[in-house]
Amino acid sequence: MMNFKNIKVISFDADDTLWQNENLFRRTECDFCKIMLPYSKKEKAIKVLWNMEVKNIPLYGYGIKAFTLDMLDAALKLSKGKLTAEETKQIINLGKKLIKSPIVLFEGAERTLKKLNKKYKIVVTTKGDLLEQENKIYRSGLDRYLHHIEVMSEKNKASYARLLKELNIKPQEFLMVGNSVKSDILPVLEIGANAVFIPSKFTWFYEDGDESKIPAKNFLKLKEISELIKIL
Amino acid sequence: MMNFKNIKVISFDADDTLWQNENLFRRTECDFCKIMLPYSKKEKAIKVLWNMEVKNIPLYGYGIKAFTLDMLDAALKLSKGKLTAEETKQIINLGKKLIKSPIVLFEGAERTLKKLNKKYKIVVTTKGDLLEQENKIYRSGLDRYLHHIEVMSEKNKASYARLLKELNIKPQEFLMVGNSVKSDILPVLEIGANAVFIPSKFTWFYEDGDESKIPAKNFLKLKEISELIKIL
Repeated sequence: MMNFKNIKVISFDADDTLWQNENLFRRTECDFCKIMLPYSKKEKAIKVLWNMEVKNIPLYGYGIKAFTLDMLDAALKLSKGKLTAEETKQIINLGKKLIKSPIVLFEGAERTLKKLNKKYKIVVTTKGDLLEQENKIYRSGLDRYLHHIEVMSEKNKASYARLLKELNIKPQEFLMVGNSVKSDILPVLEIGANAVFIPSKFTWFYEDGDESKIPAKNFLKLKEISELIKIL
Repeated sequence: MMNFKNIKVISFDADDTLWQNENLFRRTECDFCKIMLPYSKKEKAIKVLWNMEVKNIPLYGYGIKAFTLDMLDAALKLSKGKLTAEETKQIINLGKKLIKSPIVLFEGAERTLKKLNKKYKIVVTTKGDLLEQENKIYRSGLDRYLHHIEVMSEKNKASYARLLKELNIKPQEFLMVGNSVKSDILPVLEIGANAVFIPSKFTWFYEDGDESKIPAKNFLKLKEISELIKIL
């Protein structure tokens, strides 16, 4: 349960909370597997790519540039030194296409921000590549409803505590809304703030978290972003 | 000339102001040209690479991941579809080596921050890849002297104005110290704040600015970072 009365700032995760994102990565993974067909079956290609993504996080962080370099590393491994220039180019182009993908807002996202913006300070808190995330926010047109944009290298307790200090608010005055148990819910509840979990159809395997670990206090699970309007 | 009395916050650029950076890129460019020798002379390889960097800025932004993808694009162009898997791997490894490069602080950088930290709020304002820049700051050990770290996607008037708003200070209370006329000096002077220019031995061609365009008001040029201690 949650005490709504204290809330002053509502922070939204971006990818897969305000707009579709993970489905684009899934489609790109399929395209990658097609390019890898001369060297590997789909299942193996996916497995090698996913392992490469996790392995490279400390080095490359998150975002499409990192993902492009992960695909190249995976392709070099899968092809055992036989990757052609044409295949390299195709993989790089998959990344470029991903960067240029149009933003597809979730149903009700704009309406919700517009409405809540009248009563609360609205913030977007996202993880990943600075330029990519800023560009997506501006291209989404949602920036007009935002008081602040925070791009973090990791969404952990320390990052959220720093944000609250910056916004000059107490934990009970902060509500985070997102689709990742690991990044949007658990660290926020741990610092004593509020969290709303809205599962998305697609979630990156790395962000999958155990829902059973979520404490009931200060927490709510919703199906759609527009439900926030009725509650808050 | 500059009126020091009002200054409350001193913001330092990071790369080539606090530590060596551009020389590492220059060395990597040389390594890249060596890999390209089967396809191109050094002069042409450098030219194609530099053009690719500028062309890709809107897509990739700044930082080592962007630079790695720029090198790959340039290599694909120079080799006319003949780039081998081994060469691709070598280029990716140049990027990884660059990310892992140890931080070499400039003479007097730590001493200067330590001293100024007693009287002013110290901030680092840098451009580029969020994870890369944060990691460099933590690895440098200078984070202990910092009130705030700001990684911007572009260092322009709007970004500095936003930072001042966040820090809740007036332009005359802000001093920026850096090596790039284009990113650290001109936009800062344009919003009415103060700027100290410390040229570095190496500056990225894209950051080169015309010194003759710098107005004298609120501006100072120094040779070394430690000279700040004597003045402030």
